[in-house]
Amino acid sequence: MSELMRKAKELKTAAQQMASLTTEQKNEALERIAECLVKASAFILEENAKDIKAGQANGLSQALLDRLQLTEQRIEDMAAGIRQVAALPDPVGEVVDTWERPNGLLIEQVRVPLGVIGMIYEARPNVTVDAATLCLKTGNAVLLRGSSSALHSNKALVQVIHQALQQCDCPSGAVQLLEDTSRKTASHMFRLNSYLDVLIPRGGAKLIQSVIEQASVPVIETGVGNCHMYIDDSANPAMAIQLVVNGKTQRPSVCNAVETVLVHESWAKEHLPDLVTALKEKQVQVRADDRARALVPDLEPATDQDWHEEYLDLILALKVVADVEQAIEHINHYGTKHSEAIISETEENVAKFFQQVDAAALYHNASTRFTDGFEFGFGAEIGISTQKLHARGPMGLTALTSTKYVIHGNGQVR
Amino acid sequence: MSELMRKAKELKTAAQQMASLTTEQKNEALERIAECLVKASAFILEENAKDIKAGQANGLSQALLDRLQLTEQRIEDMAAGIRQVAALPDPVGEVVDTWERPNGLLIEQVRVPLGVIGMIYEARPNVTVDAATLCLKTGNAVLLRGSSSALHSNKALVQVIHQALQQCDCPSGAVQLLEDTSRKTASHMFRLNSYLDVLIPRGGAKLIQSVIEQASVPVIETGVGNCHMYIDDSANPAMAIQLVVNGKTQRPSVCNAVETVLVHESWAKEHLPDLVTALKEKQVQVRADDRARALVPDLEPATDQDWHEEYLDLILALKVVADVEQAIEHINHYGTKHSEAIISETEENVAKFFQQVDAAALYHNASTRFTDGFEFGFGAEIGISTQKLHARGPMGLTALTSTKYVIHGNGQVR
Repeated sequence: MSELMRKAKELKTAAQQMASLTTEQKNEALERIAECLVKASAFILEENAKDIKAGQANGLSQALLDRLQLTEQRIEDMAAGIRQVAALPDPVGEVVDTWERPNGLLIEQVRVPLGVIGMIYEARPNVTVDAATLCLKTGNAVLLRGSSSALHSNKALVQVIHQALQQCDCPSGAVQLLEDTSRKTASHMFRLNSYLDVLIPRGGAKLIQSVIEQASVPVIETGVGNCHMYIDDSANPAMAIQLVVNGKTQRPSVCNAVETVLVHESWAKEHLPDLVTALKEKQVQVRADDRARALVPDLEPATDQDWHEEYLDLILALKVVADVEQAIEHINHYGTKHSEAIISETEENVAKFFQQVDAAALYHNASTRFTDGFEFGFGAEIGISTQKLHARGPMGLTALTSTKYVIHGNGQVR
Repeated sequence: MSELMRKAKELKTAAQQMASLTTEQKNEALERIAECLVKASAFILEENAKDIKAGQANGLSQALLDRLQLTEQRIEDMAAGIRQVAALPDPVGEVVDTWERPNGLLIEQVRVPLGVIGMIYEARPNVTVDAATLCLKTGNAVLLRGSSSALHSNKALVQVIHQALQQCDCPSGAVQLLEDTSRKTASHMFRLNSYLDVLIPRGGAKLIQSVIEQASVPVIETGVGNCHMYIDDSANPAMAIQLVVNGKTQRPSVCNAVETVLVHESWAKEHLPDLVTALKEKQVQVRADDRARALVPDLEPATDQDWHEEYLDLILALKVVADVEQAIEHINHYGTKHSEAIISETEENVAKFFQQVDAAALYHNASTRFTDGFEFGFGAEIGISTQKLHARGPMGLTALTSTKYVIHGNGQVR
């Protein structure tokens, strides 16, 4: 039997045991994992060093090597993160709704774990720990499929997790790492509907796209954010400039950063030069349409590709529009349904924007950077869903659960 | 441009308009459709007769011809059904949750339409009207892909729906029938992620499986039900017999009918002959394991295939088990996560069954036949979801919606 099938079967059994654990049992397991990871730091760093060495030899970029690198501090941070998850309320067992039918049937909708979750991600060992602990907290079993370039690190982390689980009531089979990182095995995994209840890809657009295209197991699509800010004619100039600068520059590499700014023509005539000056002070490269370039000389011209681009960098696309309708049309055409903001003092336009823009999170007079499980107050985040089924926007623990109906009768027939 | 692409583009535009309609506008459109369908009965029946004639020539079974057949009465029933949907509360616009963050951001989660829904179904013209009206009520646009053997009927129905919509504020482009029913075009439709937000297949196991295997658009899996009843040792004999007979015989052709009965060995020793007698009186053919056959002679032997079977017929698989744990194990192994019942007077066993059986609907002392949107009190049903994402169990109007976060700020930055 292949590694994949063997682990899939173990996971299915473990998922059934996980569903019956109490909150206390799950939290104890999380505390134990946090403890064991810190104790095993030396071993984990030793294994991580092998990945780093191989990465350097294979010419991985500095940014990728940085994501791959573990340190004492990063392991401490992981442990702190796990303790935070342990402290969160357990969504499993919650009675979502309850009602009685005229025939006397009492129907309860109860929150339950999803079952077995497949996580697909890139060379970030912290995701291994993060995904495992979020899944355990919600009573799920998890199949981790990370990158081959983080394999030593991931094996070490999962080995420590197993040691921790063996000391408590949580089945250690509930966390499995797929060591065979071939594409062929990944494709098989994506179609294992009898064993996996859901796939969650975390990473770049290419990874997510490849899972969506190949999978028959249901997928929760996360991540890609071509986010816009629209500055309405009534926008407060100082606020608008501050929001755009924050949305673009506070952390340009993340999915909720602003990529395109749309400016009402009246506002642009008066304030566009100030906006561009503020952006240039922050080293932002601006690519603009002809109308913007007519107002502020020396801007690079934008092409149609720029409106599609998720730069994840200090680059911003800029366009002058006639009104809120044109802004909405642009966003619904080029956006990725992630986070979109309007800066305006005109209630009617805000209402129109909120009504007509199709995205997970819509902002009035605030930065798009708040689309995040922690900023929303969920206490944890599995990712940001850009699809409309199951979960939309930042996903907290509840996104890792389903429900079942439990019906109490006394002999009712139809 | 192909018919599919042309209609997909029209649907996307129409979906944006649909999202802004008021409940009154949508209800008015539904009333108009009901009215126009009844007025156009003669035309619809004329077109339906062409499908029936072709179906007879092609040797369709009597059951399929009956599903395909329209009559004055059936059109009246459709109209009555549409008026019932109009009378239901509109889930769109509901504020699901609202909270304020310490930084003053006010976050609202608002219910919105899914967008464009793809319905894939068999030769049942009533599904054309049913799906169109449920989608319109929830502010969605819908691409209908029915069977080629119902094409005349479906074209006539959609033509009448278009006439009705042209008389009101609802964009008539919001309902589109795919007239090209080739497999190639269906495969293209299933991968049209930029235009379709979700696919809902309605029909037999084979149809649903084929959509799941081919689709990259998210699918809501509906339907297949290999449902069980477990009779515990403490079960009231009269109630147990009545529930099994109802679950199996009240309407054997539907997904929530019982297919396998598991009986505790102590109960079986005393009451199995009575149960079998009651079933035989209703012409049920029983296929039993060796232990059951030792207690009641002359029963046909069951094979492993019988535990997997969704008979949809007056056939029942019967097995004697040692205890509730063995029953749970059997159900989690062979079940399709649809509806499962325990008949028992032992609270502890009921709790264990509810906790450990993995299915959409679990019953204590009631027939599995209640897994149905109307019986649950939802007032409508799009199908019964057997997957765990988005919606599980009977799906009412809410299952055709998503949410978005709407965030009110006054200049907040990170």
